[in-house]
Amino acid sequence: MDPARKVDGRVERGERTRRQILDAAVHIASVEGLEGLSIGRLALKLDMSKSGLFAAFGSKQDLQLATVDHAADIFVEQVVRPAMLAPRGLPRLWALCESKLDYSQKEVFRGGCFFAAASAEFDGRPGPVRERIAGHMTKWLAVLVGAVQRAQGEGHLRPDVDAGQLAFELDSYAMGANWAFQLFGDARAFDRARKASKARIEEAAIRQGRRSSSRSPRRKPAATRG
Amino acid sequence: MDPARKVDGRVERGERTRRQILDAAVHIASVEGLEGLSIGRLALKLDMSKSGLFAAFGSKQDLQLATVDHAADIFVEQVVRPAMLAPRGLPRLWALCESKLDYSQKEVFRGGCFFAAASAEFDGRPGPVRERIAGHMTKWLAVLVGAVQRAQGEGHLRPDVDAGQLAFELDSYAMGANWAFQLFGDARAFDRARKASKARIEEAAIRQGRRSSSRSPRRKPAATRG
Repeated sequence: MDPARKVDGRVERGERTRRQILDAAVHIASVEGLEGLSIGRLALKLDMSKSGLFAAFGSKQDLQLATVDHAADIFVEQVVRPAMLAPRGLPRLWALCESKLDYSQKEVFRGGCFFAAASAEFDGRPGPVRERIAGHMTKWLAVLVGAVQRAQGEGHLRPDVDAGQLAFELDSYAMGANWAFQLFGDARAFDRARKASKARIEEAAIRQGRRSSSRSPRRKPAATRG
Repeated sequence: MDPARKVDGRVERGERTRRQILDAAVHIASVEGLEGLSIGRLALKLDMSKSGLFAAFGSKQDLQLATVDHAADIFVEQVVRPAMLAPRGLPRLWALCESKLDYSQKEVFRGGCFFAAASAEFDGRPGPVRERIAGHMTKWLAVLVGAVQRAQGEGHLRPDVDAGQLAFELDSYAMGANWAFQLFGDARAFDRARKASKARIEEAAIRQGRRSSSRSPRRKPAATRG
């Protein structure tokens, strides 16, 4: 066998193992917390040797950081990317709200929103894990605020709307729904969050009849682009 | 010494010790979680003997349950009771929103809202602790929904407002603010939550000029009662 291919094969296997470990870790952490993740526990669960796990992740903290990053990749894949397929402006903002609620309701992570659980667990524990969680959440909020601003730029939302305020309200509904669903199994909370999000976005929208009196949209309205 | 008084004194001392333990426990749990509460840990922190702690709380689970109940007492004392001093109807609903936000912002519990942290930690762990947390939160939501309905009964809020929906939105803002403050230290989130709560309540309110066209209030408006 070509030595280079042999090395490639080993790297690939290593990557596959790492991925397999992290796939299990994100679900465990979403239910029981990142502190519940131990290399011994994961080894048992995955029927792997502890030494193999140690080789993939040097320490518990490295495992926690890699788990947070893996969860962020899944979050982007499940929440952000599908919403980006919606037309720019208001449809995309609405798609972001919907896909965050769907992600929470479908339990992409077994314990509901990974980042709601991880934030609550680590917000009182300064250090790299907390910083990593905060970093991913800062990016998510920037996506949401950016979507509001984009919808303003497209002439879909009123220019005087405070983008940070609207993003705060929309994300709060998703948090409230995730909380009620996880604690009470109350799926109506998602309907409430959808209803509230729709009402806030509609309030902030430039109504069809009034659109001409606002700043002219820089681009054709989303509906005509498809 | 009168033997009865001696027993009374012992009971009183026992109560004082229990209270002292629980006062420490709620703060630790709000930062590090209820799972982080161990009898050994608390004994060290309070400079007490482990056996004394065992005498007060038989098991870790008993300690967790007592901690949740103690946190609920503090929550009622800090959030619910002061709001009940406000005049019935809309002023009391607004006072409930404000006092929940104040409680979270002032960090009555060192790690922010005790129940936000405890819910996130235990929602994936079925058992008596989870049920106890859910029980207290059910009561809190009933207080909030009740305040909306009372404000409708007083003729302050429109009768067609969905009380569960409005309560969901108001409580979501408090959760969103607590989250942002604990994770990012972002105190503006409380201003955002106040602004949003005020806007929702105003939207649901019967405007002065329109009050006569609605169902007549059963009691005199709150403002005239003081």
